[in-house]
Amino acid sequence: MRRVGIIGTGLIGGSLGLALRRSGLEVHGFDADAERLSSSVDRGVIDNAASSVAAACAGMDAVIVALPVSEVAGAVCAALREGAVYVTDVASVKAPVMAAVQQEMGASASRFIGGHPMAGSEQEGLAGADADLFVGATWVLTPTTDSDPEAFAQVRELVARTGAEVLAVDPERHDTLVAVVSHVPHLAATTLMHVAAGSSSEERATLLRLAAGGFRDMTRIAAGHPGIWPDICVTNREAIVNTLDRYVEELQHVRTLVAAEARLELMSFFEQARAERRSLPIGAPAAGGTVELRIPVLDRPGVLAEVTTLVGEHGANILDLEIAHSSEGAGGVVVMVIAASGADEVVTALAARGYRLACSEIT
Amino acid sequence: MRRVGIIGTGLIGGSLGLALRRSGLEVHGFDADAERLSSSVDRGVIDNAASSVAAACAGMDAVIVALPVSEVAGAVCAALREGAVYVTDVASVKAPVMAAVQQEMGASASRFIGGHPMAGSEQEGLAGADADLFVGATWVLTPTTDSDPEAFAQVRELVARTGAEVLAVDPERHDTLVAVVSHVPHLAATTLMHVAAGSSSEERATLLRLAAGGFRDMTRIAAGHPGIWPDICVTNREAIVNTLDRYVEELQHVRTLVAAEARLELMSFFEQARAERRSLPIGAPAAGGTVELRIPVLDRPGVLAEVTTLVGEHGANILDLEIAHSSEGAGGVVVMVIAASGADEVVTALAARGYRLACSEIT
Repeated sequence: MRRVGIIGTGLIGGSLGLALRRSGLEVHGFDADAERLSSSVDRGVIDNAASSVAAACAGMDAVIVALPVSEVAGAVCAALREGAVYVTDVASVKAPVMAAVQQEMGASASRFIGGHPMAGSEQEGLAGADADLFVGATWVLTPTTDSDPEAFAQVRELVARTGAEVLAVDPERHDTLVAVVSHVPHLAATTLMHVAAGSSSEERATLLRLAAGGFRDMTRIAAGHPGIWPDICVTNREAIVNTLDRYVEELQHVRTLVAAEARLELMSFFEQARAERRSLPIGAPAAGGTVELRIPVLDRPGVLAEVTTLVGEHGANILDLEIAHSSEGAGGVVVMVIAASGADEVVTALAARGYRLACSEIT
Repeated sequence: MRRVGIIGTGLIGGSLGLALRRSGLEVHGFDADAERLSSSVDRGVIDNAASSVAAACAGMDAVIVALPVSEVAGAVCAALREGAVYVTDVASVKAPVMAAVQQEMGASASRFIGGHPMAGSEQEGLAGADADLFVGATWVLTPTTDSDPEAFAQVRELVARTGAEVLAVDPERHDTLVAVVSHVPHLAATTLMHVAAGSSSEERATLLRLAAGGFRDMTRIAAGHPGIWPDICVTNREAIVNTLDRYVEELQHVRTLVAAEARLELMSFFEQARAERRSLPIGAPAAGGTVELRIPVLDRPGVLAEVTTLVGEHGANILDLEIAHSSEGAGGVVVMVIAASGADEVVTALAARGYRLACSEIT
């Protein structure tokens, strides 16, 4: 991979440009905002400003669409048509995007692998672009049964250049999970800010002075750029509404405990949440070496998606991936590198699905 | 002020001990946990371990009760009885504590000024004690109409030694406001963690890998020590339940907007919250000098509480305070130093209440 195109040079597209250029790629960019496009060159975010989406895609080894979720599917289809070999995106909602591209492009959609870097910033737009934005972040890829394995391997390699850790997740599952860990938390923080702001004006000044670290931490994300959120809410509507309902139900349960002065139940409520919070992984994969899995697969649709998302279900990043096609027949071998810790579980799960794999430690 | 006692040498009591010793005071401490009491001396948190509450109070210029909210009133009454000149506390709920002390002690309760430092830590107990914990934090004092002005002045001077900024707030108002900026946010974060934890076990591993900065920020407070929370929930029950109801109502409103795909309303919802979040004061008072207010007052009950909480209602810290008693008659002068920015509002408000004050800039 040598030349890539980026459609949309805002915060994420701009950060990607910086990171990919640093990794040695030649980056072409397009942005509908001519002024922003020109600053992208000035700021070293892209090597070359393309005059159109077509120009940013023609002859590219890969194109990354970094637009708001409502504009992604259209741009992905354009990129596939205009000659980009592989295409990925960075939108926060995946299933509707995957489905729209599949419907529009048919077989060509196999060269599109959906993506979502779990990284953001309170900074806005190109001005907030940061080459290190993705270092250590989880970057979700959402292969489907229609995905071309080679497309997955190439896109994985591309986004790994940013320093992100790649996790394969089924698109529907991704959307359900981000409703829980991102979309509803964002709505919860925003709503909390509204409750505080809704206090009577005489109380505002005092209230703001009392807002200590906890309140600041909780509402920090409400300070972010609101532009992308209406789109996200609408596109991931169902999962968000379901999760909001669960959240409200839990809050009403807590209200009952408080009103009933149920000290013991309250204590166990706080203790459980604390244990869960403390078990959050802290980014970097556990030390302890890596493991290479060699998984012979038949060259049938969906094998790559099944194998990679099964690894993702166990929370394991794909540190490296290669598709070794068999010289004879339809089969091949998926060679995958994951962290040694947790590899046993992954191996057991793959074996349970009928894969006969070899596993060797890398020293 | 020379010698102070601290009842309870946990995270807050221990941090107080370190800060007050650093400021030159002699600190005596008592803790019901003998082992913790002995480590308090070893760690330099207190100068002297008292053998009982009585021993930690007798002959002290001031005593600070740093116990969980359910144990505070009893210890405050004991401290007043055992000879502490002035007493304060650090509990997160104030009105019930003030009322209990008033009921038990009558006129002696005037020497007790309730307090609440808006600072905390994920650290636990004595091990987390930090001399700098209160630097720049808001420290609420809750004078009432029964408070002795001199007690307020002395306690204010005492807590200001920690580097905190003192804000006077009426006890009931304090309890309502902390429900909004502290108690309900804590419950909201804890509940959010429960929703994430309640996902099916197959989804847990992936979900935790997707938890990026926003989720981490929002749930950070759920990692804190749960011990104090059941007490807080029970003691501030009414304000918490009311605020939870407002929170749930707002969440249901948001749910309606999402379900209806109401992009415009969602955008204005996010934009309003963002503007509010960005207007949060960031701790230190605005630069621009200070102002001295000289407020002649009659020596009648409640004047001090009225004057100081009125200043607090405008979000102004009391940077310094002195009570100059008139040598003749019942009157006196409250001399108060506040930040110049916002002083106009305070002066207008005091004048509207009938105070004839002098205001001079300090250069």
